[in-house]
Amino acid sequence: MTPSSPAPSPVPSAIPARATPARPATGPDGPCVPRADVGRLRPLPFDAVTLTTGGPLGAWQDRNRTATLPHVLDRLETSGVLDNLRVAAGLQDGTHRGFNFADTDLHKTLEALAWEAGRVPDDQPWEAFVTDAVALLAQAQRPDGYLDSHVQLTAPDAAFADLRWGHELYVLGHLLQAAVARARTTGRTDLLDVATRFAALVDDRFGPGGADGCCGHPEVETALVELYRLTGERRWLDLARRQVDLRGAGLLGEGPFPPVYHQDHVPVREATEVGGHAVRQLYLLAGVADVAAETGEQALLDALVRLWDSAERTRTYVTGGLGAHHKDEAFGDAYELPPDRAYAETCAAIALVHWAWRMLLLTGEGRYADAVERALHNAVPAATSHDGRRFTYSNPLQLRTGHDGSSEYSPSERLDWFACACCPPNLARLAASLHAYVATTSAAGVQLHLYADAHVRLDDGTVLGVRTAYPADGRVEVTADALVRPLALRVPGWADAARVRLEVDGLARPVEVVDGYVHVPASSAAPVRRVVLDLPVEPVALVAHPRVDAVRGCVAVRRGPVVMCLEHADLPDGVVLEDVAVVPGTLEDAPGLPGLDVPVTVRARGVHVPSGDLPAWSPYGAAPPEPAEIELRLVPYHAWGNRGVGAMRVWVPLAPDPAAPAGLPGCAPDGRAAR
Amino acid sequence: MTPSSPAPSPVPSAIPARATPARPATGPDGPCVPRADVGRLRPLPFDAVTLTTGGPLGAWQDRNRTATLPHVLDRLETSGVLDNLRVAAGLQDGTHRGFNFADTDLHKTLEALAWEAGRVPDDQPWEAFVTDAVALLAQAQRPDGYLDSHVQLTAPDAAFADLRWGHELYVLGHLLQAAVARARTTGRTDLLDVATRFAALVDDRFGPGGADGCCGHPEVETALVELYRLTGERRWLDLARRQVDLRGAGLLGEGPFPPVYHQDHVPVREATEVGGHAVRQLYLLAGVADVAAETGEQALLDALVRLWDSAERTRTYVTGGLGAHHKDEAFGDAYELPPDRAYAETCAAIALVHWAWRMLLLTGEGRYADAVERALHNAVPAATSHDGRRFTYSNPLQLRTGHDGSSEYSPSERLDWFACACCPPNLARLAASLHAYVATTSAAGVQLHLYADAHVRLDDGTVLGVRTAYPADGRVEVTADALVRPLALRVPGWADAARVRLEVDGLARPVEVVDGYVHVPASSAAPVRRVVLDLPVEPVALVAHPRVDAVRGCVAVRRGPVVMCLEHADLPDGVVLEDVAVVPGTLEDAPGLPGLDVPVTVRARGVHVPSGDLPAWSPYGAAPPEPAEIELRLVPYHAWGNRGVGAMRVWVPLAPDPAAPAGLPGCAPDGRAAR
Repeated sequence: MTPSSPAPSPVPSAIPARATPARPATGPDGPCVPRADVGRLRPLPFDAVTLTTGGPLGAWQDRNRTATLPHVLDRLETSGVLDNLRVAAGLQDGTHRGFNFADTDLHKTLEALAWEAGRVPDDQPWEAFVTDAVALLAQAQRPDGYLDSHVQLTAPDAAFADLRWGHELYVLGHLLQAAVARARTTGRTDLLDVATRFAALVDDRFGPGGADGCCGHPEVETALVELYRLTGERRWLDLARRQVDLRGAGLLGEGPFPPVYHQDHVPVREATEVGGHAVRQLYLLAGVADVAAETGEQALLDALVRLWDSAERTRTYVTGGLGAHHKDEAFGDAYELPPDRAYAETCAAIALVHWAWRMLLLTGEGRYADAVERALHNAVPAATSHDGRRFTYSNPLQLRTGHDGSSEYSPSERLDWFACACCPPNLARLAASLHAYVATTSAAGVQLHLYADAHVRLDDGTVLGVRTAYPADGRVEVTADALVRPLALRVPGWADAARVRLEVDGLARPVEVVDGYVHVPASSAAPVRRVVLDLPVEPVALVAHPRVDAVRGCVAVRRGPVVMCLEHADLPDGVVLEDVAVVPGTLEDAPGLPGLDVPVTVRARGVHVPSGDLPAWSPYGAAPPEPAEIELRLVPYHAWGNRGVGAMRVWVPLAPDPAAPAGLPGCAPDGRAAR
Repeated sequence: MTPSSPAPSPVPSAIPARATPARPATGPDGPCVPRADVGRLRPLPFDAVTLTTGGPLGAWQDRNRTATLPHVLDRLETSGVLDNLRVAAGLQDGTHRGFNFADTDLHKTLEALAWEAGRVPDDQPWEAFVTDAVALLAQAQRPDGYLDSHVQLTAPDAAFADLRWGHELYVLGHLLQAAVARARTTGRTDLLDVATRFAALVDDRFGPGGADGCCGHPEVETALVELYRLTGERRWLDLARRQVDLRGAGLLGEGPFPPVYHQDHVPVREATEVGGHAVRQLYLLAGVADVAAETGEQALLDALVRLWDSAERTRTYVTGGLGAHHKDEAFGDAYELPPDRAYAETCAAIALVHWAWRMLLLTGEGRYADAVERALHNAVPAATSHDGRRFTYSNPLQLRTGHDGSSEYSPSERLDWFACACCPPNLARLAASLHAYVATTSAAGVQLHLYADAHVRLDDGTVLGVRTAYPADGRVEVTADALVRPLALRVPGWADAARVRLEVDGLARPVEVVDGYVHVPASSAAPVRRVVLDLPVEPVALVAHPRVDAVRGCVAVRRGPVVMCLEHADLPDGVVLEDVAVVPGTLEDAPGLPGLDVPVTVRARGVHVPSGDLPAWSPYGAAPPEPAEIELRLVPYHAWGNRGVGAMRVWVPLAPDPAAPAGLPGCAPDGRAAR
């Protein structure tokens, strides 16, 4: 990016010292560092965890740096995102291109680069880009602090005139998150000054005592709390809480979308079910969790748990995707989880990670870390191709043979950019901060949530070495010269606790799981040097809740946290994926496949029943075509679509399994039918 | 409607005599009367069939007249449709209200009133309204013939500037259909003059030798062919064929929708699958069938049969609904037929009736009449409440407990009008012409396609009395003083031919079904006086094609042509519909229910398995909750939603049936799973 004339040099402001530093500062803050002591757990410093590139999370960070970020930076130029700001800055002529929130493609990228600067402080190839971009933003910013190139270029007199659809506070939110990240990891406040000026304008206009108004697209709530956390200025927390308070009062009015689309149908504290636009709902709830983490308000905490249960039990795909409907990008009804028309927007899975992490910090309960793990091993990584330069926007769990991929919202393969490009830079900022979700600390000790080959530096200087090939292998070895604080290791909800093994300094220990964790005592008097946790990662077949009509009579294969899928590339010629069923009792581990960058696949017996000539409807009881045995190979869902275009499915019809016990068909939780 | 000043009096034009009258004129023409002899069957005159109000089709026509039409006329006023035209006519001030094709609400209503005038010529309460409306249209029409209030009021210089989204030829199409209907049933040409002026403008601009352009929403094709049929002027047929020829060449360009949305992705003659916006696709194919019926072009006929197979085998709901996706109102992939998110727009089912009828006239094959019957006993009547004043736009086959009905496109109950109100007046025009789909004639004799209590007058003066309680009862009795032409009676595809009984003048006859019909010889030498056909209408359980993943492990109950559903109102307190399964071998007829205006329901045994507390996913083989026996009652799908708001489903999970033969689970055509 080369602005054609120099931008005014913003004056760096000082970051106030923390009013109440709640934990010893041993390194820069990462995302979501509460000031208050409401929550049970606290994040480690941003530089405390280093992922090695041997495991999938570390390799993902590496690919994000070497492939995704350069690609995204290129597209900021070609898509017009930077040009929009240059025009707004008066540096060139032109008209606005893209959606009205296109600025956020840059903001999210700047956040990603900030985390990347904190992750690899010794090598910062993008600092010149960032400095230029900040200068450009400063130059584009209006004297009153307003900074939204779409409004500035298309309706300059209409700032905040359309809160329902304008996305202006959403744009501010992403700007703030980038600014906070940059200040945290580099200490540089240039972007923070720009963002704070915009935030101050919004606070003057919509803060306490100002106009009643909230943004159609939640996002500013979490960002304002982060600004409060960084600066200690209470006004930002108050403004965030006010945004939460005002939502659900009908301020957004009637429009082309029903009020639930913007979560404006019911106040947050009274909501009983997640609903409406999934990303909006999940961003809102991440922000609500942030407000609750600072205020401790019980009504918000109760609402958060209630809405979590609604999302987790009734509206989450087995991959961790959320949001069933393409229309209005909405959640849909309880248990309405079609695999083929799954919208499951990439940004929704990312938002889920944000929300779940905040719930984990608040409660210390492993189920929230389970959700982070589910998303990070399935829905989120599925959104990026193995080369790091192609992406999904929606994440279906099934693509049919002959699928019409003419829409960018349901393509047949990953695309290299989107008219609405919210997802790729969102992936970049999450990937750059992945390591922040590995471990936490608390008065009770240290907690390991995600298993990945890594080093974890504690605030007392202890370094935990985590050695594992997880999730390819279930063995996790944690070593330290001398760990003197209790260590909690997550026992994932997917694991059969009776088959989990724990060994501490060479001795087997009983595995007692409390709130999702097994606890290893350690102290100065009894330091620990080596802990081995062994999790049973062999493949299992799952059935969905019987109200999930769309996958009745099917199983999904999950191996450890990794959901598998059947893909066209693994079928013999002439076999249509839709004609294949799996025998669930025959699953076993198998090696990786040529051309597919995964260490383990799953082998299974199946049957092939050619159905092309069958009529649309047949009388119940008519004889089926003769089945043929077939050898099946399942690959990780996140790896689909890296071997050409074709059919894919996570939920596979169930073939007879003579060894299985009898079950109740149709309505039975085991997914089997008439017997 | 009272225009505030008199409109110019249009000069009636003469209707040219038919160039090649293909059949003796014994009454006014109804819809779709081919001039050429390409097709195998020909419609009867519009006044040849009279439905009694004792059966569902006759009662529907009666309700349409007494309730639906008055309601629609009221809404033309309150929705602004008439005001738009008054403003365009300079009779009042104002701005355009509604969608850009809102004029067609009036045009379809005028068509309905024209058919109604032909159906009940002795009582025409709406002639004053029609005369006023025609005068208003004439006054709103521009001197060059252009008549589209939206363009005239919003962008008067932009006529035909946006063929992709402008709907102007679509508006012309509905205007023409109304004008043709009025001319046919009343001989009045006032509306025809208006419509023809607009058509002439379009012909000058886009006809042979003019600009290449086709409308984003097909509909004008069928209308132009009807205009040709009425007037004998070849230019209209040529213009229709040109519209067909130009589609698929990419003339509509790229926009917010992919080219398939407008069926502009492939030329009609090369298309192998139906796709895109369902109503557009089906209107187009009705128009293509009309062109083929006049030109006999084999390539079009081949394409029509190919696309029919695609629609019928892979993209039609068991109710006769079509179009799975809410997003883009699109068909979706083959076998993608979710019952809960079924879009199944009312207008698509109506369009299917139009297309199927044209295919029947072309081929004489009963499968097309089967499709007409399926739609007319299920998808189409489901769109109107029993009081005739509330309607559906989309027609899902399942509504969940707690459904979010906040969108007019997926409400929890029928609505009394819509922002996009295409469906109610479309229902009105179909209902007013229902009797035209009962019977046809041909050189080979007379054909009965739909069974309903009726009188059928043949062109030789013979009157067939059809006495039946169909579909409540399968017995159809046809009497005549002396039928001297062979009679073909449709044997529906749903009927087990081995169980059909035929009796001619008291003697049992063998039932040999050819192309969907059983043939009864008759001649002057051997006249026939009484034919009794007995069809087996008892309830049967159906399973869907195994590729219809969304209803695996479920059955739909069909009784004769009528698809049944389970509805909340018939369940005991505390039983959630989603927790109920049916034993398919236990279906039996039962009486109608209080408050539900249907003569027959279906009783079945089922099981109730409370599932509310089950987790989202369980390991395959886990023990299901204990089931309880439950008595189930199924009611006709078309009658759902007349007893309060609540859950409904057509496809019901399958409970064990010890008497059923073994089948292959999951992938089996019988829908049953692991055994």
